[in-house]
Amino acid sequence: MKALIDKAEVLIEALPYIRRFVNKTVVIKYGGSAMIDDTLRASFAVDVVLLKYIGVRPVIVHGGGPQIGAMLDRMGKKTEFVDGLRVTDDETMEVVSMVLGGTINQSIVELIQRGGARATGLTGHDGGLLRVRRKTVNGRDLGRVGEVESVDPRVIASVTDAGLIPVIAPIGVDANGITHNVNADEAAGSLARALGAEKLILLTDVEGVRDSQGELIRELSVSEARKLIAESVIQDGMIPKVECCISALDGGVSRAHIIDGRLVHAILLEIFTDGGVGTLLSL
Amino acid sequence: MKALIDKAEVLIEALPYIRRFVNKTVVIKYGGSAMIDDTLRASFAVDVVLLKYIGVRPVIVHGGGPQIGAMLDRMGKKTEFVDGLRVTDDETMEVVSMVLGGTINQSIVELIQRGGARATGLTGHDGGLLRVRRKTVNGRDLGRVGEVESVDPRVIASVTDAGLIPVIAPIGVDANGITHNVNADEAAGSLARALGAEKLILLTDVEGVRDSQGELIRELSVSEARKLIAESVIQDGMIPKVECCISALDGGVSRAHIIDGRLVHAILLEIFTDGGVGTLLSL
Amino acid sequence: MKALIDKAEVLIEALPYIRRFVNKTVVIKYGGSAMIDDTLRASFAVDVVLLKYIGVRPVIVHGGGPQIGAMLDRMGKKTEFVDGLRVTDDETMEVVSMVLGGTINQSIVELIQRGGARATGLTGHDGGLLRVRRKTVNGRDLGRVGEVESVDPRVIASVTDAGLIPVIAPIGVDANGITHNVNADEAAGSLARALGAEKLILLTDVEGVRDSQGELIRELSVSEARKLIAESVIQDGMIPKVECCISALDGGVSRAHIIDGRLVHAILLEIFTDGGVGTLLSL
Amino acid sequence: MKALIDKAEVLIEALPYIRRFVNKTVVIKYGGSAMIDDTLRASFAVDVVLLKYIGVRPVIVHGGGPQIGAMLDRMGKKTEFVDGLRVTDDETMEVVSMVLGGTINQSIVELIQRGGARATGLTGHDGGLLRVRRKTVNGRDLGRVGEVESVDPRVIASVTDAGLIPVIAPIGVDANGITHNVNADEAAGSLARALGAEKLILLTDVEGVRDSQGELIRELSVSEARKLIAESVIQDGMIPKVECCISALDGGVSRAHIIDGRLVHAILLEIFTDGGVGTLLSL
Amino acid sequence: MKALIDKAEVLIEALPYIRRFVNKTVVIKYGGSAMIDDTLRASFAVDVVLLKYIGVRPVIVHGGGPQIGAMLDRMGKKTEFVDGLRVTDDETMEVVSMVLGGTINQSIVELIQRGGARATGLTGHDGGLLRVRRKTVNGRDLGRVGEVESVDPRVIASVTDAGLIPVIAPIGVDANGITHNVNADEAAGSLARALGAEKLILLTDVEGVRDSQGELIRELSVSEARKLIAESVIQDGMIPKVECCISALDGGVSRAHIIDGRLVHAILLEIFTDGGVGTLLSL
Amino acid sequence: MKALIDKAEVLIEALPYIRRFVNKTVVIKYGGSAMIDDTLRASFAVDVVLLKYIGVRPVIVHGGGPQIGAMLDRMGKKTEFVDGLRVTDDETMEVVSMVLGGTINQSIVELIQRGGARATGLTGHDGGLLRVRRKTVNGRDLGRVGEVESVDPRVIASVTDAGLIPVIAPIGVDANGITHNVNADEAAGSLARALGAEKLILLTDVEGVRDSQGELIRELSVSEARKLIAESVIQDGMIPKVECCISALDGGVSRAHIIDGRLVHAILLEIFTDGGVGTLLSL
Repeated sequence: MKALIDKAEVLIEALPYIRRFVNKTVVIKYGGSAMIDDTLRASFAVDVVLLKYIGVRPVIVHGGGPQIGAMLDRMGKKTEFVDGLRVTDDETMEVVSMVLGGTINQSIVELIQRGGARATGLTGHDGGLLRVRRKTVNGRDLGRVGEVESVDPRVIASVTDAGLIPVIAPIGVDANGITHNVNADEAAGSLARALGAEKLILLTDVEGVRDSQGELIRELSVSEARKLIAESVIQDGMIPKVECCISALDGGVSRAHIIDGRLVHAILLEIFTDGGVGTLLSL
Repeated sequence: MKALIDKAEVLIEALPYIRRFVNKTVVIKYGGSAMIDDTLRASFAVDVVLLKYIGVRPVIVHGGGPQIGAMLDRMGKKTEFVDGLRVTDDETMEVVSMVLGGTINQSIVELIQRGGARATGLTGHDGGLLRVRRKTVNGRDLGRVGEVESVDPRVIASVTDAGLIPVIAPIGVDANGITHNVNADEAAGSLARALGAEKLILLTDVEGVRDSQGELIRELSVSEARKLIAESVIQDGMIPKVECCISALDGGVSRAHIIDGRLVHAILLEIFTDGGVGTLLSL
Repeated sequence: MKALIDKAEVLIEALPYIRRFVNKTVVIKYGGSAMIDDTLRASFAVDVVLLKYIGVRPVIVHGGGPQIGAMLDRMGKKTEFVDGLRVTDDETMEVVSMVLGGTINQSIVELIQRGGARATGLTGHDGGLLRVRRKTVNGRDLGRVGEVESVDPRVIASVTDAGLIPVIAPIGVDANGITHNVNADEAAGSLARALGAEKLILLTDVEGVRDSQGELIRELSVSEARKLIAESVIQDGMIPKVECCISALDGGVSRAHIIDGRLVHAILLEIFTDGGVGTLLSL
Repeated sequence: MKALIDKAEVLIEALPYIRRFVNKTVVIKYGGSAMIDDTLRASFAVDVVLLKYIGVRPVIVHGGGPQIGAMLDRMGKKTEFVDGLRVTDDETMEVVSMVLGGTINQSIVELIQRGGARATGLTGHDGGLLRVRRKTVNGRDLGRVGEVESVDPRVIASVTDAGLIPVIAPIGVDANGITHNVNADEAAGSLARALGAEKLILLTDVEGVRDSQGELIRELSVSEARKLIAESVIQDGMIPKVECCISALDGGVSRAHIIDGRLVHAILLEIFTDGGVGTLLSL
Repeated sequence: MKALIDKAEVLIEALPYIRRFVNKTVVIKYGGSAMIDDTLRASFAVDVVLLKYIGVRPVIVHGGGPQIGAMLDRMGKKTEFVDGLRVTDDETMEVVSMVLGGTINQSIVELIQRGGARATGLTGHDGGLLRVRRKTVNGRDLGRVGEVESVDPRVIASVTDAGLIPVIAPIGVDANGITHNVNADEAAGSLARALGAEKLILLTDVEGVRDSQGELIRELSVSEARKLIAESVIQDGMIPKVECCISALDGGVSRAHIIDGRLVHAILLEIFTDGGVGTLLSL
Repeated sequence: MKALIDKAEVLIEALPYIRRFVNKTVVIKYGGSAMIDDTLRASFAVDVVLLKYIGVRPVIVHGGGPQIGAMLDRMGKKTEFVDGLRVTDDETMEVVSMVLGGTINQSIVELIQRGGARATGLTGHDGGLLRVRRKTVNGRDLGRVGEVESVDPRVIASVTDAGLIPVIAPIGVDANGITHNVNADEAAGSLARALGAEKLILLTDVEGVRDSQGELIRELSVSEARKLIAESVIQDGMIPKVECCISALDGGVSRAHIIDGRLVHAILLEIFTDGGVGTLLSL
């Protein structure tokens, strides 16, 4: 009986969160271990389906760097990185399109469908979803790497209104119809802004943002985050993630989370428990 | 971390039940200790609100025998019972209307509203909800005691479509517009039939139906239930409850439950956990 | 034939009024003799049903002072009045709830239903309809007497959209969920404001407002009304009624009427004939 | 005061009729004196507008024989009648089209609009409303005289759904697109059938159907009507009117009325008073 | 095969025009030879029906001067013209109403219906479509000649929403309900403004506007047009047509065309080919 | 002028086809030269966009055999064909998914979007669109080659209702969620059946079906087609195409066409000209 009561308490604890998120959009950047490990994949699917059933509108944006790298290796194609971004020539872009849009995207759609919800894949081409301009880093051209210029969210509305969960590959199109590679965190952030999302969740392979002592930071304001970047406490790969959260918050998203995708049911715990997991950023 | 994972597992365990009950109607007979004890009242409110947020359509039917008795005592009015039904003269009926429709009904509406959902009270008068005929027991007239003749569910649809939880006092009206007292279990059963409810839940002050050894019966088919009544294993006050469940099942309700309202979050546990609590009746 | 022509002329006379009130809300405070005398009750029901059929949206607010008094007497409970308001302790409030919400409200619902329209009862609890704060008179606390702080009209829209006539008991709820007694005229005025009603009609037991000669005043502007109050021409119980009309007019209601509920079909005559009955207040 | 009460009683007497006819279609054949005399024209407009405001859906079909005759005279064109039907050559048909469709139809539209409702004129051309075949009488060809073959009621639905009263000139079109003259009573009857009208009203210049003693018959069954025709009690011009009512009743119209259009507010009195005026035919 | 490719090219050439005009309103003034010659009538019907099927919303306004003249002659009635406007006494007005509203209007409706679309006739009476004031020319009263004061476009929306093509006779009504004759070009221009039309097309019996050398002008800005009128290059009957176009353009219509109605499929060619036919006026 | 008239005639010739196909679904199998040659690609895009603007609902299904072959070559992977079907091991399937779903599908979406309509890509995963079972040919297992078992057309309705053109890669999923390669003609035929399409068009690299003399057959009934297959007049790769048409016709599709995709605007000519191009199959 004690066990039963405990169960009930968990459901009860979830109630205010359910109430808060009903009919709200939550954009989830899916990537890292959570996309590779079978247990974590299954756990991700269950979490997303549960969100859907409870009335939340999840929107999934996925990455795929390691899989792209593996395919490039198989094809004997070498690529270079500048500031964490892959320099992308035409041949590389073809592989990016194939792996992100052809393999990974559809495997995530299938994963969610088998979990019991209906899903559909999208890329930036579909309905003109992601319009990009060519990106340079410190004046250096990276080839077909784009930064998001505008988002046409109508195609997402069409599919979510029909009860489908959109699964989005971060591929953008420039004004001439040329396909470009887009950083998945950045795509997720832009989509969260354009959709007026309630929450942006970045699934990563770390616990969250750490302070100068190496302790996990539970809550972080935008101004504190900027200070930590300036002080180089936040470094390397965490910088673009935090900046993407800041940009989303500036654009009207209520909360942004950097959480540990290596944890089973990380999304669920983040959304439905009092403590949450990882680091919460807000204004 | 273990605790967190456990929490997630509880939510996951709830998923198939959420999926099954989305947009379904669940009629709950609310009464007994769950209506008196403050902890249980709060627990009831939370459970109903959670159901509502998760997309279930709860319909509450309440009793009020003890409160009616108390008011009659205060007014120095004596009444008699026949087969568990209160013989109801005009003066008694006035008290029944006042206590059920005026005090109890509105206090439950308020209880649910404070829990965070919107609710509205109804009696059988409202929109012609409950039409009754005068009941006799073994040929004996009991005064203004009615049995349900027909249900006009449109008023319930109006309020549930508007997002309100209906809270129904078991007061019926005969063809001449005369108010009658109706047994709350019977009203709940009739409403479940008329609404095509997925589930009927009777909150009682016992654990459930017991077998001849006094052991709680987890699942009971209609034919078994009839046999247990015939063999007098099911006796006294449990007979009308079981018969009301049988009638609902015959009328198309999928499952009927007799559960222990003395347990906190009994409704939640019944609906969202694998084991359930109390006795499940089905065809 | 002459008689027939006369009949037609009456219908014709009604035409511009029908045209003006189609789809408009008319809030009617129902009370006094019209709620007690059987002929007047029947006449009230017919009037309300006719309004409904003609396309008007009637909203009924009722009082119940005499019936509450009678029940308090029966229970041997004494109460005191301050400025026409009953000092209401907890025990008195319970009786108020029972009589207004349990007995009277449901009997009016039934009265209208038998007249041929569908109706449903509401109190300030339902859907959070009437939020009140505790009222003091000249610094004196009156117990559980509330003044209306805000109105949530959504529950009324739900039922009127579904073709039901709302019948409202003047019971309000404070921020802590505590039930309070509200003056019925005041409740009607607040509802008329919140609903953007076209008209507020107060059924009283007098012919209307009288001038210093004791003559019935047919039309009265708000400024004249204020002057007559200042000059003590309007006195006693008429003051709050007139002030309630003024408040409704200030809040956007087009016209307010204080009419003689002792007259059969008073509502109909007020709305559909050129002369009207009683006193019309406008800006 | 007595006068006021009497007024109220008239409105009350109308209530059940209002209730019965809300959202129902009433087809009115407008013609004879009611179309010529200014007082009667004004009275007709008021009646139709009142019906509209009360929620009835009036459909007007008009004739125009005398006006057509007058125009033919002005143009020095002679025509012949066979069994009350005008033999219609091409030149005559042009005049019929001009007078019915051009002058009369638009003057009735204007009459109703000035009465306060919105109206729009239609002929059998509009939206393919009236398809006819050429009519012969006892094998004799009458030229461009048509009998209704089919009705396409969609154009009427379009305008009534938009709140407009359709005013229909009895002009039909054959399979080759050739315009034909149609008897207005017959057109009204066909429209009543096709629209599933509740009531068909023929405004005439007599009091109604008379029995063999010359007394006005208040109510007449279809079988009695057939008997009176067989016995030549019903004669001449009344025969086609009665037959048109019979045909409408056979086609599902509930009631058909032959009433005295010389009476002011004849339509109103027919619909909203207990006695009615003229002769009621029913199955 | 060459022929086939050419066919395809024509369809392809039409594509951008189709795209531009989908769901847009095009007001067409129909008159002159195109309304008399059988081949041109058939060609007009096909063009209008094609527009309709392709998703354009055509609105037809027709004239009828010659037919009115012929009928007046037949009736031995003489009339005078001032500045191209017929002085219209009451008797003349009756003929105008009959010919425009009765004969011509319905024949155009039938013409379109036989072409395969559904149409319905309207005059300025219907739904209060065209409200006019009496017109004077240089201080001279012309009798029942009106200039458009306001347009109530709701009746047009009702019929176009129902898939019907409105065919409008240029008859207006003044504030007293008196019928007036309106110039058809002017009526078309006013309707184009009121409907927010994309295009106004005037079908005439000339090729278009000519310059001082007598050459057809393909495109003309409003300022150039005004200059040509000032310089008397544009003269006589072309002046009001050009002014009507200018007024429509000022009122928000995107383009106005004066085209040669003597050309088969003139409307189609104007709308769907690159060159167009006749003169295009724009801001 | 002659040229203009000819242009108009082409549009007129198209009218009945436009009328017939408004709001109808046309499934187009896109492949072969039309998918490779730049002129033909552009011509395809224009045709599809024109269909869309004219009110037709095009659904595109594409193949990609040559591109898959090229990619397999690049990766040094050899594959074998059985009866025209590629034996598909897991590694091959990955390439199929990448090329069809990642590269080709998105390039067609972009092609159409740049033509001026909105499009979105789909595979059989999306919304559970294509459910397949493993196919065997003469008892021989071909690896991950599927035949269509069922179609869930809801995802197509969602996107077409939102105004998007669906572009479908022929990838199916079996009951275990395993991805399979599907023949594109077969996928197109199954979709045409499931969508109740009006027309199925297979773009090929031949002129159409030829008779025993090598002459192109313009029209072919299902029974004739079966006879020609039996007589080996229809051979090799044309057999599955014809059988796919037969199956679609049996399933309720009105017409099926095998046309020459090497012809510019082949689709347009097929749909909008009297002669059509290629071979028409019907019941």
